[in-house]
Amino acid sequence: MTDQSTPQAPAPALPRQSGSGNGSSGAGVSRRRLLGTAGATGLVLGAAGAGVGHATAPAAATPLTALGARRAMFHGKHQPGITDPLQARGHLAAFDLAAGAGRKEAAALLRRWSATAERLMAGEPAPHDDTAVARDAGPSSLTITFGFGHSFFDRTGLRGQRPAALDPLPDFSSDHLDKARSDGDLWVQIGADDALVAFHALRAVQKDAGGAARLRWQMNGFNRSPGATAHPMTARNLMGQVDGTRNPKPSDADFARRVFVPAGGEPAWMAHGSYAVVRRIRMLLDDWEKLPLARQESVIGRRKSDGAPLSGGTETTEMDLEKTGEDGSYVVPVNAHARITRPDQNGGAAMLRRPFSYHDGFTADGAPDAGLLFICWQADPLRGFVPVQRKLDRGDALSQYIRHEASGLFAVPGGAAKGEYVGQRLLEG
Amino acid sequence: MTDQSTPQAPAPALPRQSGSGNGSSGAGVSRRRLLGTAGATGLVLGAAGAGVGHATAPAAATPLTALGARRAMFHGKHQPGITDPLQARGHLAAFDLAAGAGRKEAAALLRRWSATAERLMAGEPAPHDDTAVARDAGPSSLTITFGFGHSFFDRTGLRGQRPAALDPLPDFSSDHLDKARSDGDLWVQIGADDALVAFHALRAVQKDAGGAARLRWQMNGFNRSPGATAHPMTARNLMGQVDGTRNPKPSDADFARRVFVPAGGEPAWMAHGSYAVVRRIRMLLDDWEKLPLARQESVIGRRKSDGAPLSGGTETTEMDLEKTGEDGSYVVPVNAHARITRPDQNGGAAMLRRPFSYHDGFTADGAPDAGLLFICWQADPLRGFVPVQRKLDRGDALSQYIRHEASGLFAVPGGAAKGEYVGQRLLEG
Repeated sequence: MTDQSTPQAPAPALPRQSGSGNGSSGAGVSRRRLLGTAGATGLVLGAAGAGVGHATAPAAATPLTALGARRAMFHGKHQPGITDPLQARGHLAAFDLAAGAGRKEAAALLRRWSATAERLMAGEPAPHDDTAVARDAGPSSLTITFGFGHSFFDRTGLRGQRPAALDPLPDFSSDHLDKARSDGDLWVQIGADDALVAFHALRAVQKDAGGAARLRWQMNGFNRSPGATAHPMTARNLMGQVDGTRNPKPSDADFARRVFVPAGGEPAWMAHGSYAVVRRIRMLLDDWEKLPLARQESVIGRRKSDGAPLSGGTETTEMDLEKTGEDGSYVVPVNAHARITRPDQNGGAAMLRRPFSYHDGFTADGAPDAGLLFICWQADPLRGFVPVQRKLDRGDALSQYIRHEASGLFAVPGGAAKGEYVGQRLLEG
Repeated sequence: MTDQSTPQAPAPALPRQSGSGNGSSGAGVSRRRLLGTAGATGLVLGAAGAGVGHATAPAAATPLTALGARRAMFHGKHQPGITDPLQARGHLAAFDLAAGAGRKEAAALLRRWSATAERLMAGEPAPHDDTAVARDAGPSSLTITFGFGHSFFDRTGLRGQRPAALDPLPDFSSDHLDKARSDGDLWVQIGADDALVAFHALRAVQKDAGGAARLRWQMNGFNRSPGATAHPMTARNLMGQVDGTRNPKPSDADFARRVFVPAGGEPAWMAHGSYAVVRRIRMLLDDWEKLPLARQESVIGRRKSDGAPLSGGTETTEMDLEKTGEDGSYVVPVNAHARITRPDQNGGAAMLRRPFSYHDGFTADGAPDAGLLFICWQADPLRGFVPVQRKLDRGDALSQYIRHEASGLFAVPGGAAKGEYVGQRLLEG
């Protein structure tokens, strides 16, 4: 035991605490909650726990400030969960409006969902019938994000407000899509650094749906835990590949233009919103893992160990597409995934990828049902996902090791102002 | 940026770092690995990251020391994963020996598995064909634990070495067991605080099985992330209930006697081992969550908010089973779960519960396929799980809200000494 009994001790470095300059996140700590927890349990910070068995030293609690207290903001110009750091746990869910439910019921549902998201993201109980599953944790970087699918506009009589950008994605030859796990009237993305916080939010969202909407599909995902790796900027996927190196950065001059619909764009209710393309991409890991390292690296075009391009340098070094080896062939092969997906190879097309990995056990033949819940964000899918995927579809060396099994495209409106709910400008416009 | 560029800065409190006096865990940090990572990425500790977007400040990495470097020891008196703190992610897997595989193949497999576990738990690559999925993380508290099921002894000609304690569990009236997800020749428990580290280990174990054994069933689970809650000692389950308050503690005089087989016990190869009962317990959350708080609390016998007994006090206060209310009835109802499971109500039967929660999405009717991967450890199931479950089966108020869907019972031998593999005393005895 130490004499440090205040929960206000300085926290360790919290690089995941903030958003990325989009105004959706803050470094706020729910002080009331923190003090409440501390009061109830005699929380002690700074105790040197090394060598002390957890069961014999309950007072040496891991401080809530370390992870639980991190908070993203619900209100803002953009919805949360787009530029916020990747969270350790994620749930994706799509809902269809119930028979007979229309614009009015949808508006009431989005109002309920927004109230729930605002409360839970602050570490407070849900407004109705809170299950208390996550009562003693803080927000744990929880984000809840809402979107509308193509079919939503038919069912609510809002066809005139449907963005052209929601037109169905083209068919790709490599698609093996399960319709039952694709699309949907409404889409909810939940992320948090604690599994119970994320589950609690998923259940609250499902309860709020009540009789107005029913679950269409739901998927679970994960990323690394904060602190497990010194690579917080880029993630590793289940192929072991560093993923996300070339993501647009908020500091890029054209970041907002690429990712968010501008004010004054069409339709007006989508101002500051974004379009999410969601793909469940199965990785054929048994085949992939049989490849020698050098072959894996030539499929991707980057080194596995650190994500550096095969043309040399470190992870963030610009890839030299023209560099040739002694035999005269390109060092980064013409069908390498990283070459094909480069914006300058796709007329400048760029999207912000913010995925979760998934693993739902094994199929009957022992192959892992695992891969990537690919989620990408862009102001216009026709200048983001579509041209890149078209090109991948024609010649990506990676394509034989992956399979797109489900797909969705959702219009994610801008963030709610105080007193407003997400989608209000559409539903009451 | 700060001028703190050494990875040796003091870590924050790490109460989860150590084991519980059983010798299986240590506070060791893989220094080589840590320095290697720091060298590659310019790791900076202690940077005040609040307010700094992750994408714009890659140098302000979350230090590996915070979570990734925590390490449990493979070698020791007991196997790891029994008294170690709960980890954020878990995988359970059962394997059956392949047709034609016997004692010799089983011994070779356990030798491979032990070598893999030792390497991965130290944060090193697997001995063969490492997939590098978790290469840039440390051990992240990884534990890998191996056990033998009843059928193993038939298939290996070792029937004479089969412990009587592996006799099949009695049938319970509340069981709805799926045989395909129950039992198995071999059982592997994996836990880690990082999801990729855990997945990496699962794949390595599956690869090691090769042609000698095939996966029979596999389940994924989770617990809270370190730091998400100030309750590291006891977990919350998906019913929102504080769970594990009455767990035996390593400081208890009879802890070792209850949990571990003594040296000189029967059979000799199980010295310092333990028996694991594994139950997949579905929670009927739609029904449970409809109950008012007071009813939930009387079903359990404890307050939901903090786990204190209904007879008063705090979480760790002894429950007063005789206390009556104004109407003369017991404050802790006669069928309350916490009353029935008390050791002094079961002839002293006690077990060490160390579960994971699970959530595998939703069933077709929208009900969550979620609950508890209940794992309990005892020196003798007939003085641990069995008498308690028999009593629960007769009158537990909780039983209508849960369903046992799968079951396993495994003999988990003592830890391997240096140069030895797990189970060697059985397989080469």
